[in-house]
Amino acid sequence: MSAPILNRRDIEFFLYEMFDVESLTNREKYQDHDRTTFNGAIDTAQAIAEKYFMPIRQKVDANEPTFDGEKIHLIPEIKVGLDAVLEAGLSAPTSLYEDGGMQLPMVAASGAFAYLSAVASTSLGYLSLTHANCNLIEAHGTKDQIEQWVKPMREGRYAGTMAMTEPGAGSGLADLTTTATKDEQGNYRLTGNKIFISGGDHDLNENIIHLVLARIKGAPKGIKGISLFIVPKFLVNEDGSKGDNNEVALAGLFHKMGGRGHTSTALSFGEKDGSVAYLVGEEHKGLMYMFHMMNEARILVGTGAALTALTGYQYSLHYAKERPQGRLLSCKDPESPPVNIIEHPDVRRMLLTQKAYSEGAYALCLYGHELADDEKTALTPEERAHATTVLDFLTPIIKSWPSEWGHKSNDLAIQVLGGHGYTSEHPVEMFYRDNRLNPIHEGTTGIQSLDLLCRKVPMKNFLGYKAFLNVIEETIQTTKDSETLGAFSQSLADAVVNLREVTNQVMAAAKSTENNNPDLVFSNSVSYLNMFGHITIAWLWLRQGDLATKALATEPHIDEQKFYKGKVQAMKYFFNSELPLTYHWGSLVKNIDSTSFDTQPDWL
Amino acid sequence: MSAPILNRRDIEFFLYEMFDVESLTNREKYQDHDRTTFNGAIDTAQAIAEKYFMPIRQKVDANEPTFDGEKIHLIPEIKVGLDAVLEAGLSAPTSLYEDGGMQLPMVAASGAFAYLSAVASTSLGYLSLTHANCNLIEAHGTKDQIEQWVKPMREGRYAGTMAMTEPGAGSGLADLTTTATKDEQGNYRLTGNKIFISGGDHDLNENIIHLVLARIKGAPKGIKGISLFIVPKFLVNEDGSKGDNNEVALAGLFHKMGGRGHTSTALSFGEKDGSVAYLVGEEHKGLMYMFHMMNEARILVGTGAALTALTGYQYSLHYAKERPQGRLLSCKDPESPPVNIIEHPDVRRMLLTQKAYSEGAYALCLYGHELADDEKTALTPEERAHATTVLDFLTPIIKSWPSEWGHKSNDLAIQVLGGHGYTSEHPVEMFYRDNRLNPIHEGTTGIQSLDLLCRKVPMKNFLGYKAFLNVIEETIQTTKDSETLGAFSQSLADAVVNLREVTNQVMAAAKSTENNNPDLVFSNSVSYLNMFGHITIAWLWLRQGDLATKALATEPHIDEQKFYKGKVQAMKYFFNSELPLTYHWGSLVKNIDSTSFDTQPDWL
Repeated sequence: MSAPILNRRDIEFFLYEMFDVESLTNREKYQDHDRTTFNGAIDTAQAIAEKYFMPIRQKVDANEPTFDGEKIHLIPEIKVGLDAVLEAGLSAPTSLYEDGGMQLPMVAASGAFAYLSAVASTSLGYLSLTHANCNLIEAHGTKDQIEQWVKPMREGRYAGTMAMTEPGAGSGLADLTTTATKDEQGNYRLTGNKIFISGGDHDLNENIIHLVLARIKGAPKGIKGISLFIVPKFLVNEDGSKGDNNEVALAGLFHKMGGRGHTSTALSFGEKDGSVAYLVGEEHKGLMYMFHMMNEARILVGTGAALTALTGYQYSLHYAKERPQGRLLSCKDPESPPVNIIEHPDVRRMLLTQKAYSEGAYALCLYGHELADDEKTALTPEERAHATTVLDFLTPIIKSWPSEWGHKSNDLAIQVLGGHGYTSEHPVEMFYRDNRLNPIHEGTTGIQSLDLLCRKVPMKNFLGYKAFLNVIEETIQTTKDSETLGAFSQSLADAVVNLREVTNQVMAAAKSTENNNPDLVFSNSVSYLNMFGHITIAWLWLRQGDLATKALATEPHIDEQKFYKGKVQAMKYFFNSELPLTYHWGSLVKNIDSTSFDTQPDWL
Repeated sequence: MSAPILNRRDIEFFLYEMFDVESLTNREKYQDHDRTTFNGAIDTAQAIAEKYFMPIRQKVDANEPTFDGEKIHLIPEIKVGLDAVLEAGLSAPTSLYEDGGMQLPMVAASGAFAYLSAVASTSLGYLSLTHANCNLIEAHGTKDQIEQWVKPMREGRYAGTMAMTEPGAGSGLADLTTTATKDEQGNYRLTGNKIFISGGDHDLNENIIHLVLARIKGAPKGIKGISLFIVPKFLVNEDGSKGDNNEVALAGLFHKMGGRGHTSTALSFGEKDGSVAYLVGEEHKGLMYMFHMMNEARILVGTGAALTALTGYQYSLHYAKERPQGRLLSCKDPESPPVNIIEHPDVRRMLLTQKAYSEGAYALCLYGHELADDEKTALTPEERAHATTVLDFLTPIIKSWPSEWGHKSNDLAIQVLGGHGYTSEHPVEMFYRDNRLNPIHEGTTGIQSLDLLCRKVPMKNFLGYKAFLNVIEETIQTTKDSETLGAFSQSLADAVVNLREVTNQVMAAAKSTENNNPDLVFSNSVSYLNMFGHITIAWLWLRQGDLATKALATEPHIDEQKFYKGKVQAMKYFFNSELPLTYHWGSLVKNIDSTSFDTQPDWL
């Protein structure tokens, strides 16, 4: 038996026990649904994942996209698999029926999509970026734009991208130089170079719709002078047929360490007369619109990272249960048979750590999906506003925690397999390479940490910060008197007290005249992000431990007991081995440790 | 200007200031040497590294060895480079003149070899494994064996390997099944399969001499029944000419995530009549002999890991100094030019962390080389015995700390480059893949941790443990009254007190009747290894900080001031951001945290 892509029992635990998606069927949008329809969507996704993507998982990696000077070539199996996803309606399962969707709650859709993402996260990027592109145009484009561009994307005829990064600017969007020139009729022509455009060119679709950030000639400098444009690869004639090439040229393919299911391209726009470009919304507001797509993409990055970690955990777990090697320290008989490596305590430590990281990360992402859903469909305006506030606050953590720690989880999956894990005999080294991208794209961990500490925490007089800590406090309150969980609840409460103190001190320092250099005051932002992230995950583990403890009290079937005991152990691991680190990180932030800041470039 | 392979100033700091190799010229073996000859060796190595290996650094990685069914093919430039190393006498620079060596002290040789290892650590494996193979035969073989096998290896005509791992046994050497059968004349024929044999087959040399662990028919089970054999790929005729193939067949090549400069092979021995095998030393003592080679290989693994980290640090440092992007938080003017990314505090943190990890790791390895040298050439028997004791104790730390933390350093090098670091535009992603092998081969980190905690610590009534802690205490004594270093000295002293307490408690638990399950008591061995490793590196940073502080007091040239200030900052970083973690790890060990141990396999 080969290793499962994911643990189905665990997916159902998240959907039906932790996030209780069945309760959402009292919302109008979801009234047709029930557990059967949710499970049906998961079954479909799992079947497609197993049939189309599992057999090519490593083939995709071994056969990087190539460019023959005219066209990009992907192995043909990718399109076959993506078409199956489209045909099953799984490319946009949360969309309305009228838009070809399934009207699934986001948590349920994520549970289904999980199977696809875990086995083919990078190839699925063609669909998920297209989906995010559609969502942006639907939110900020005109009716005509939706009709012309979103419709064929939703149908799977066109693909979509986001084109931000430039060779000279990287993460510094303020310095982008791609330029749009307006003619007398109000039409725009766009010229410039973009890099790291995922899915920027390929032959999977009739057309590719790029959402491009550019500066209109004469616009103010900095981020306030950036506008957003729709730039199709091919112009479209009035009758809807394919028109001329719109001067969108492939300038190069990046050869990546991983993530080879998804092309990463350098594109050149408008080398001759300029690419025809259609303004989205108003001039100079492009970055704000793009954040719509970026925030969505950030949550997708976190989710992909969590799922890559989960599937690596399942793979190494399966291996550890079947691979005999060595004897326990307590065994002195060389004639005894070797034990399966899962019997070795250090192998169990590595598996339990993976479980704690990957299931913790996935719980965080599902919480993000729940908030994204509540933002639109919760029954009261207060609930919807609260969801927006908390999601906005948590986005940098949802993006970065799974990316950083999911990747560490994949590192341990290799270590469980030892030398075998370092070879292409097994996919764990691929998971590890794939997941290494996630702390980088859609804003590096460093950028997320500054977003959290300098923007999201103080924003609107600490509104999101306070709202989220209140959510944590509720769980502390409901668990503090539990015999099993009381001590963990107290540990989390203590850690939150410390977090508040650290936050207060760093914010006071930012205001003081003595330390008024924000570069120094916020220089330990990654430690702050680590601290906040670990407390968030500890909270999610306390919730899981609470559910497991209650389920165990009902004396369920032995298999169920094992499942819940695993949850309790992973919670214990996280509280004993991980949460204490928050004090160390916190002290660096609180004391405004200046070691890095003080280091002059030429001392290095 | 491209990034330097290594910082030459730093190499000279280690050689002449920290490890004072010039003082070794009072030993007879080294009496011809002085700083000029040491620098000459470094110049030669650096020139070969830059001329032959730097231009093919990524080409080697992109062109994995291939097997056409008959022969293995490497890109031809590898042999050209290796021949240049051999011709320069750098393949065994510590050997006696009469054996074709340079009689260099090990620390000086390591400083020279550093350039080669940093740029081509995996291709150099062909030479360094051959060297270690020769050292083993010289120590435990007969005169004839040395004449027949070592001589042509030293001349570069033959290559050497170590062949231990088997498909069914992995790290569990006790279960190896390769069998040697003795005929009436006392000759052996060997049959079996080995995997992960580095350099197990290739066309670089006339012959390949495998040192193979096998069980003589009828030998006791377990590790006490293992013998060591010389098994050449080709038999050698009496006149020294190449004879028949000795039934050593290539069964497969492993496709590795990194380290592609060195073939990793599956070998099948003696499929027909058995491979002719020559016993080394006595029967059943093979594992003891192999440890001679393994201990040397473990120090080489640590050193390779440290150098891969150092070169990644130099690369990302160079990039950060030249790449403009973004503005500081304190800058509110969008019209100002972007700063070089080294100005961003979080980038500086990632560079300083790399410096602390990589230079700390390399200092540890050089300390190991110093001990290995003292073991043989120190002036008094007491000094020689002390060196043996400390080196034996420290080997698991020298192997694993650079492997684990050097790899983390390479992770940060990617992060400094952002998206660019994830592509083959730059070599940092290759360093990262290369270095990922080091926590696995020659005994995983888990195995090293058990070696440290269960064997090396209590061995000979804590002799090595006490001897090494005394070495640390000496540095604490000499720095405790320093105005600049007193606080750091005290931090280290406190950490050592805690380490002693943790060690005492875990050893007491191992003896107690209550907790007499060694599987539980030692289940946090990796935390112990982390703790001991971090304290060891803090000690090495305190020594570096001490030297730097004294040098700064002499008000040297401005460039020298910058260099020493960088050392002081890296020390501060290690003490502020890393050393406190030892308390967390220590508490898990001391409290015999049983979370992993208690987790039953079917709960996962």
